[in-house]
Amino acid sequence: MEERVSMLHGAGGAVTQALIRELIVSRFHNDRFEVPLEALDDASVINDIVFKTDSHAVYPLFFPGGDIGRLSVCGTVNDILMIGGSPLALSLGLIMEEGLEISILKRVLDSMKHACDEAKVKVVTGDTKVVEKGGLKQMVTNTSGIGYRNHFLDQNLEVVKSYRSLKSRWLLDSNLLPGDKIIVSGFIGDHGIAVMSARQQYGLSSNIRSDMQPLNHLVNSALREGGVVAMKDPTRGGLSNTLYEWCEKSMVGIEVDESKIPIREGVKSACEILGINPLEIGNEGKAVLAVIPQKAESVLDTLRKTKEGANAEIIGEVLSRSDKVVMKTAIGGRRILQKPRGDPIPRIC
Amino acid sequence: MEERVSMLHGAGGAVTQALIRELIVSRFHNDRFEVPLEALDDASVINDIVFKTDSHAVYPLFFPGGDIGRLSVCGTVNDILMIGGSPLALSLGLIMEEGLEISILKRVLDSMKHACDEAKVKVVTGDTKVVEKGGLKQMVTNTSGIGYRNHFLDQNLEVVKSYRSLKSRWLLDSNLLPGDKIIVSGFIGDHGIAVMSARQQYGLSSNIRSDMQPLNHLVNSALREGGVVAMKDPTRGGLSNTLYEWCEKSMVGIEVDESKIPIREGVKSACEILGINPLEIGNEGKAVLAVIPQKAESVLDTLRKTKEGANAEIIGEVLSRSDKVVMKTAIGGRRILQKPRGDPIPRIC
Repeated sequence: MEERVSMLHGAGGAVTQALIRELIVSRFHNDRFEVPLEALDDASVINDIVFKTDSHAVYPLFFPGGDIGRLSVCGTVNDILMIGGSPLALSLGLIMEEGLEISILKRVLDSMKHACDEAKVKVVTGDTKVVEKGGLKQMVTNTSGIGYRNHFLDQNLEVVKSYRSLKSRWLLDSNLLPGDKIIVSGFIGDHGIAVMSARQQYGLSSNIRSDMQPLNHLVNSALREGGVVAMKDPTRGGLSNTLYEWCEKSMVGIEVDESKIPIREGVKSACEILGINPLEIGNEGKAVLAVIPQKAESVLDTLRKTKEGANAEIIGEVLSRSDKVVMKTAIGGRRILQKPRGDPIPRIC
Repeated sequence: MEERVSMLHGAGGAVTQALIRELIVSRFHNDRFEVPLEALDDASVINDIVFKTDSHAVYPLFFPGGDIGRLSVCGTVNDILMIGGSPLALSLGLIMEEGLEISILKRVLDSMKHACDEAKVKVVTGDTKVVEKGGLKQMVTNTSGIGYRNHFLDQNLEVVKSYRSLKSRWLLDSNLLPGDKIIVSGFIGDHGIAVMSARQQYGLSSNIRSDMQPLNHLVNSALREGGVVAMKDPTRGGLSNTLYEWCEKSMVGIEVDESKIPIREGVKSACEILGINPLEIGNEGKAVLAVIPQKAESVLDTLRKTKEGANAEIIGEVLSRSDKVVMKTAIGGRRILQKPRGDPIPRIC
């Protein structure tokens, strides 16, 4: 039988990664750039220009705490930030379904504008396409973005280098070393559950709102404090996927303490009803940071002073090579966390 | 009745432009950049970085002379070239319909890779999303791109400045002055008719192939010769739309000579069958150039020596203010060309 694209190919996680590696990286690898395609990191870097693209197919378009417009801005801005970039300009590609109400488009654009102002970034170029009425669910968007090197990145790396060597001038997935501490900037799972609760066919009622927000201030605060070796926003595939990408690219293991991972009660109970793992759900306003142990507490304190990082926690640390994420459970045992095949909730971003 | 998005909102031309001006530029204008969003030119320029996005919803995915992969590369590369940029890197956003055969995706990616090699550009970052089976017609793509200032642009502008002043350091739609000559680099209408002929329900049989090609060599040749004040690839809305954008932004009129416009017989007869105007059909491998009169013949000779510009013609010239495109007809009369409301063939790019 012929192989076909499935929803999992767009859900982040192992299946998406296999598709990207086998079909895309194999054709387009470009190792002459500092952070090339094949790094499969949050963004690429070409001559100190950070460059990133994201398409957004979330539905419904509006959900508690956000909408596709805000998502489009936050997603791309945060990816540029995570690698050590400072977002400068966005492009906006709109692919709309014939018959979409103009009033809905206006609401999306208003929200996008608001998020751009928050993130201090401009939409400078765009494109609109329309497809026939059908299965698109109103609209999908693409936001690509460019950024410069973050002003605070070098001082952050100076702090790291006063304790140990570092492979890259950028905050790459491959930068972790045993002993580094893992910090998550706040509650996880909110975004996916908020989108899910807006899909009425699931009968899920919750007061959970998407965490969707641009992380400029949080990232700049952490870098000013110094000691960060890697950062990642745990989007599709959630915290588990982020930790596995770090393990594989840094060739290390990671141990996390279940009791330290901030998860709201509403998210926990929704996940129980749906039978899914909150650690595999995409977030849109959180960062996971790997920090040298000497600076972990001070970075944590700094994050907690920001609005976006008020609920930050040190959740674990990097172990020597094992390629696995191990979880210390609440009852004192240890188990290997599964690597997600894909986000358990489809089309949340 | 509530206003809704129609196919015309994605077809280039006056209706698309009104949507972009009223809904997007009104929110996101950014006049602190050298070529801002509100210029609505082929690309934007931020601190000498050229930045462009294009989404592609052509169907069928494969047609005589090209496919969506090649289109994705050529479209973005050519837009970067047209404004005076030199393409450096592309992003690739894939939005696929569930059930798409992997073998089709591979064919698209192979074609894209081939076009990247031709255009000497790299795909450095990407994203994949999957939507449920429905009306997407297999896949849509987004290719954004960044570029530097073209090496030959300054020497081109020096030639212009030895004859007259110029408003911008870039090849903008607003650069035209009365007396400038209009050159088209080859046969127009091929792309749209090729796509149309691949849609079997129209029963259109022709041997026309898409003109889809990256124009690096053609553009570099023209700029090395010198004297070019503006360039544009006549995509959605075709040559007519290009000329009207120039008229409106440069506040001039343009007169073109019908007998000089290169159109293949097969395109003419297909257009007669379909009842559409070949001047309004999108092209994907052509450039329209505005050149100072002193250099028009030498730029024409240079273009004709390239493979991509072998059939170039001087088709007209810029008049003083009128905001209209006038056509000298084959039988010696003069008529005003209609400004296209949108490309007459939907989803050709």
